[in-house]
This record gives sequence, C-alpha cells and structure tokens, in this order.
Amino acid sequence: MLLVQKYGGTSMGDTQRIQNVATRVAASLVADYTNKFQKEKQHSLESKQDLKNTILSPHNKIVVVVSAMGGVTDELLNYAKCFTPLPNERDLDMALSSGEQISAALLSIALNAMGLKSIALNGRQAKIFTDSNHTKARIQHIDTGYILNLLDEGYIVVVTGFQGLNEKGDITTLGRGGSDLSAVALAGALYADYCEIYSDVDGIYTTDPRIEAKAKKIDKISYDEMLELASMGAKVLLNRSVELAKKWNVPIYAKSSFSDDKGTLITTEDNIMEKPIVSGIALDKNQARVSLIGIKDKPGIAAELFGKLANANINVDMIVQTIGRDSKTNLDFTVPKTELEKAKITLNEFSANADIIDFDNEVAIVTIVGVGMKSHSGVAAKAFESLANDNINIRMISTSEIKISILIDLKYAELSVRTLHTAYNLDK
Amino acid sequence: MLLVQKYGGTSMGDTQRIQNVATRVAASLVADYTNKFQKEKQHSLESKQDLKNTILSPHNKIVVVVSAMGGVTDELLNYAKCFTPLPNERDLDMALSSGEQISAALLSIALNAMGLKSIALNGRQAKIFTDSNHTKARIQHIDTGYILNLLDEGYIVVVTGFQGLNEKGDITTLGRGGSDLSAVALAGALYADYCEIYSDVDGIYTTDPRIEAKAKKIDKISYDEMLELASMGAKVLLNRSVELAKKWNVPIYAKSSFSDDKGTLITTEDNIMEKPIVSGIALDKNQARVSLIGIKDKPGIAAELFGKLANANINVDMIVQTIGRDSKTNLDFTVPKTELEKAKITLNEFSANADIIDFDNEVAIVTIVGVGMKSHSGVAAKAFESLANDNINIRMISTSEIKISILIDLKYAELSVRTLHTAYNLDK
Repeated sequence: MLLVQKYGGTSMGDTQRIQNVATRVAASLVADYTNKFQKEKQHSLESKQDLKNTILSPHNKIVVVVSAMGGVTDELLNYAKCFTPLPNERDLDMALSSGEQISAALLSIALNAMGLKSIALNGRQAKIFTDSNHTKARIQHIDTGYILNLLDEGYIVVVTGFQGLNEKGDITTLGRGGSDLSAVALAGALYADYCEIYSDVDGIYTTDPRIEAKAKKIDKISYDEMLELASMGAKVLLNRSVELAKKWNVPIYAKSSFSDDKGTLITTEDNIMEKPIVSGIALDKNQARVSLIGIKDKPGIAAELFGKLANANINVDMIVQTIGRDSKTNLDFTVPKTELEKAKITLNEFSANADIIDFDNEVAIVTIVGVGMKSHSGVAAKAFESLANDNINIRMISTSEIKISILIDLKYAELSVRTLHTAYNLDK
Repeated sequence: MLLVQKYGGTSMGDTQRIQNVATRVAASLVADYTNKFQKEKQHSLESKQDLKNTILSPHNKIVVVVSAMGGVTDELLNYAKCFTPLPNERDLDMALSSGEQISAALLSIALNAMGLKSIALNGRQAKIFTDSNHTKARIQHIDTGYILNLLDEGYIVVVTGFQGLNEKGDITTLGRGGSDLSAVALAGALYADYCEIYSDVDGIYTTDPRIEAKAKKIDKISYDEMLELASMGAKVLLNRSVELAKKWNVPIYAKSSFSDDKGTLITTEDNIMEKPIVSGIALDKNQARVSLIGIKDKPGIAAELFGKLANANINVDMIVQTIGRDSKTNLDFTVPKTELEKAKITLNEFSANADIIDFDNEVAIVTIVGVGMKSHSGVAAKAFESLANDNINIRMISTSEIKISILIDLKYAELSVRTLHTAYNLDK
C-alpha cells in the first residue's frame, strides 16, 4: 500500500510533536490498510492487483508531506515585512520555503534516529514543478522517478509541502493550504492508495460543533459535498485541494494527529454505498446581499453587471433572478462583506438600469449539502417548513443538485443551523 | 570593481541589523575603490586593464555572502539533537542550510525594498558544488556563469554562505567558518578584486586587546602571518579560509559591519611594502605539553609515535627533539588539552621506549609572528632576553621562517604577551 501522509503546522508544532509524528509514521509503515481497502475499493478494477501486491508485501510505502512548524511561516513573513509591506515575491518564497525545509529535515532526522530509513526532500528534490506565480504558484507536473526509486529502496520519503520549483530554478510557494495541495498532487502523481491529511481536527462534521454540540463526524463524504461544505466554511481542507483530489481521483482521509480516530474519508460518490440525503449543514457569515429591483428586462444587462464586478475582482456567490412587475426583473446576489464597499462603486455606475439598489450586511447563508438530494424529493420543503416553524424568514434561495443555500437574517444564523441539523436527523 | 562581501551572524543578527547591512551594501555599490586599488595592486599586471574598466564604469558589482541570523544555526542544531545526539548528517545539512536561505532572502528583500536590483541564491542556485562529506564538505568547484550573468544584468547577488550541493543533488554544509570559505571561494572563482569579511571585529590586531590594551590594529598582513596568528587563537578568520585565499590570491579585507574603519587587508607578501619584523603576538592556552625523556635513538621511533597519535585523531602541534645523555634523545610536543587523556592511552602503549613520560597541562604557547624575520637576525634573542628579564622560564622553543613559538608556564601567559608586545615596539 502506498500512502501519502500530510502533517500540518500544529502537528509539527515543536520537537516533541515532531517525535509524535515520527512514531505515527513508523506505525503506519506496518499498519494493515488491507481491510479498509477491501471495503472501500472493491468496485475498482485496479484494486485486485493492488490487493495482491499488498498481501505479498506486509509493509506500506510512505511519503510524508509536512508543513512548517506552527508559527514559523508567519514569523518569516513578519521578518520580511519589517523591510517593506510588499516584499519582492521571488525572494519571499525563498525565505518562506525554508520553514518546510527545516521541519522536513527534522522529521527525517527523528525517523532515522528511530532506526528507520528516511530521507528528506525539498520541493526541488521531490521534482515538484510549478509555474512562476510566486507566493501562489500552481503545480504543473511532478517527476516521480526519484521518489519511486527511494520508496523501492525502502526509504520513508519526507517531502516539504507548500513549495516547488519554476523552470528558472527559483523556489516557489503554493499559497494558503499549499501543503495539502502538495500532498494531494503527490498522491495523484504517485498513484497512492490514500492521502491522509492530518491536522488538529479529527474529520469533517455534519456542522460546526461550536454551533451545534450534537454535530457528528462524517465517515465518508463525496468530493462534491466536501467542496460545498468547504466553501461554506469548513476549514479542514481548502477547495483547491479537494478539486485536485477529485480530478486525480485521490481518496483523502482527514484525520487528527492527536487521536486515533479513523477520520473522514473523502472519495468519489461511486465509493459511497449509503448515500445520505443530507450530509451536513454549512454556515457562511461572510456574505452580504445586494438586490437590484426593477431592472429593465433587456438582454445582456446581467452579463454586463457581473462582467464589471469580475473586472473589479469581486467574487459573486449566490445569484437569484426573479420576475418583477411591469415586465421588469429583480436580481439578488451576494458578495463577500469585505468587498461590499468596492461593489457599491461598481453598482453606482449601474444605477440607471434599476429602480432600486439595496444592500444588506446583516445576513448569513446556511447551506444543506447531500448527494442523496438528487434522488429524493421534498428535501427543500422540509428546510422551508422547519425554518418557518422557528419564524426565520427566508430572503433568498439557491439550489444545485447536491445543495440548498438559504439566505437568512444574520441574527438567526446559528439557530437556523441547529434547526436544520435536527430537521434532517443529523443529531442521530 | 567586483567585490565579494561576507556578513557574519552577528552582523545579520536581526531585521534592524539586516537593514544596516543593506545600507552598507548600497553604499559599496557606488563607493570609489579605485584609489585603494591603485595603491594596493600597482604591481600586478592584470590590474591596469581592470583599472580602465573601473574608470569606465563608476559602479561596483557586488556579491554578498551571508551567514544565518545569529543563533539560528545553533537553534536548528539543538532541535535536531532533541531526537538523537548524532542526527543523520544528510538531513542535518538540509536543516542547517535553511538558516542562510532565510537570511539571504531577507537581505535581498531589504535591498529590493530600497529600490535596488537584488536576487538571493542558495548554494544550489549559486552552483557551489562540494564533495559529499556532510557537515564538513569541501568546495570542489563553482560554476560562475549564472552569477556573472546576473551581475551583468545589474543585480546585487546575495548568496547563502556555508553550503553547497553534492553530485547527488543533496545539500551539504561546510562546517565551522563555512560562510567565510564560501565568500573566499566565490571571490576566487569570480576573480573578484576584493573579498570583504565583515564581522563584529574591525580587523586583525597585534595581539588580543583583552590581554594588552595597547594592541594596535594591523593595516596589512600577509596570508602566512595571518595563518600563524589565526592558528594561535585570532578568531576573525579560520585557517581554511586564509589558505584558500592564499591559494587563489584573493585579497581579503577583515572589517567590522558596525564601524567605518577600513579594517585589515590580508594579501600576498609581495603586496606589502613595509615588511614589519614582527606583526603580532598570538597566545594559545589550549595546548598541553608531553615530554618523552630518554628515548632509544633508533630510527622510526618518532614516526611510529606520531603515526599512532594521528590514528587516534590527536593533533600534535609544536614538536621539539633534543639530544639527551647516553645517545638517547628527548622528544617534546604539544597536544590540545582536550585530547590529553586520549593521548595518554596511546603513550602508555609506548612507555617501554622511553625512560620517563611527562605531561604538563599548565602551559601556554606564545608566538611571535612576522614576515620581516626572514631578513632580520636577533629577533629570537630579543624575545628570550625580555622573557628572562621578567623571570619567565622558557620550556620549549620552535621556530619557522616567520614565527617563533615559545612554550611557557600558564601563569605567565598574559604577562609574556604584554612583555613581547612591548619588546617589539608593537605598542608604538
């Protein structure tokens, strides 16, 4: 079994924690992933051959991807900002990438000290090639030959997350959540059986446990559901990583490095046998509502508006259009609260096209996510009914195949999460 | 003028100090090194062409070599030693090299922030190739093409000291004083006009100012004198760097990054017009005396003894052999005090060959260094006379063309330095 394990900054917080990670890696080396494997991969054709290989060789091959020790990246960034608010990004990447170089080397030292065969590689040595967008580079390809050779020679391969090399030989970094991205990309390129993402959270929950104490950990979730949950505020994995995992079909385990909980498996819908109607409830309190009432119903007006907003780098999320009176239409959408003032400037240029333009900062979006919705009716009706029972007014509704997003007044945000969590029996 | 400047860990101690270094580098970019140059290089043939180039282009080209921010290397080493007293050296080098990667990147960020064109390179990017002796690698060659191109494009090139790359692509480090070595090697490979080594000391002194307050800074000193002074305890430059500078004929300025003092020029004897009879007095309190009295005078005995000591990794320094009675000989030599116990084990195996074996820990070596000694007589006599006047017994004497080393009782160590400093008019 070939595993890619990623340990975040909190897991690598100090030398004691790095030692714990080393112990965990050592245990994974001989852990039996086969049963898990049988259950979860029985439908895939390749798995039979893989399974045979696994039985022949009791030991797993492990690639470990690490973040910098907690706080180090911020410390380095703060150093750089002593000189200028906008450090030149090429050199900044060189400084920032050092954090992972240190943590990877220390983990490999710890593994070697335990008598294991381990080697640390930085982004260059792991041959992770990116474009040249410093501080937010994209991985272009990974040459896996060297890593595969090292694995064949029996090495645990510890790779620096968050970084790569551009074609000029300069060090690049991948931006926020970059180490997850490195892990998923390596897992994809190496055809790993699993990518395990270790953090201080033991998986994906049906909703934020700080809002609803009865929130339950989810055993399995599809990439698409995860994308909806993550964009709505679940912070375990950034969407970039989930999208990449989906594209390369990499099964991800989200686990805690501080417990032995088996975590949450994020995989293709096909690998999930029992498809829950509703998997979870997400909450996003960072959006503001914009409403244009009484727009002349002529073609191209919406396109022009959203084009202008895009040019101003404003991300528009929910969009709902309805028929108003006098063959005019109403258009509602949301923008991040932090971008509302910028949006107002664009909207002012547009004011001649609508009777009224209205803004509301005091809103929240609650989203019901579940792949089972596709084949079940009445899911939305239950949401509306439960919210009505609690006197929560619905301001906007937007649906897709696997989610229902509802805009409500901000003051009802937490209440609506708890109401819906109960309504869909997520409390169990 | 092409300059290589090296800034040590104290000079790079924090962001404020890195900013000071940046200011100093910026000033050097337009500083007039020509006058200096004329005086010091008038005898060398190439210098005329160089001089013309310098006049045509008023700006200097600068390569900056940096150490890690003060304390960082020790911190990284301590982290590694949390896991094992003997961290595996390949991964240790990867961790340790990160310190310079951070400081080089930060300095380049500071220079860019001042509106200058600067780029930071690590050992790999600077194409400094070494052997594979991790933690104490030797530089094998430097491909200067990339750096020369960057200099031609107008960049200040900031290079990580202390590190290189072996042929496998692994990061290596050069051991203690490694950044000086990087700077001297780069200066040699780039045919730089000067290598400036900045530390917290403003040059080489006639003796340790903590022992003799009247010690004077030396303006110019030859490589050979510097080697004798350095091996006797002057800590500004390690011998490895001076040897390399001598081999590649790199003129070194030892300067302070905290003052504008012009420092000490270390160069070939040919470039030093007035050759002082005595340049300085060095003191070494780290040696112990070993005496073998009454050795049978048969060939090969000394060779056998020193062979055994070398096999036990014991460095022997002063060696003096004298004729004793009964056609036997006496052999005296010194070993580092820290290695005396190890030396005793070897000597015990050897005890049948000598009448008496005697040890003395309470000794010091005072050394008088000067290239002018070659052409002056009576230099040694003056030393013996002055020491005798102060009732300091001489236990051993060893001389070379440019130095006289005298072993004395430890309690007279500082007194003998002051006595000799005055005797040779170094107080002025």
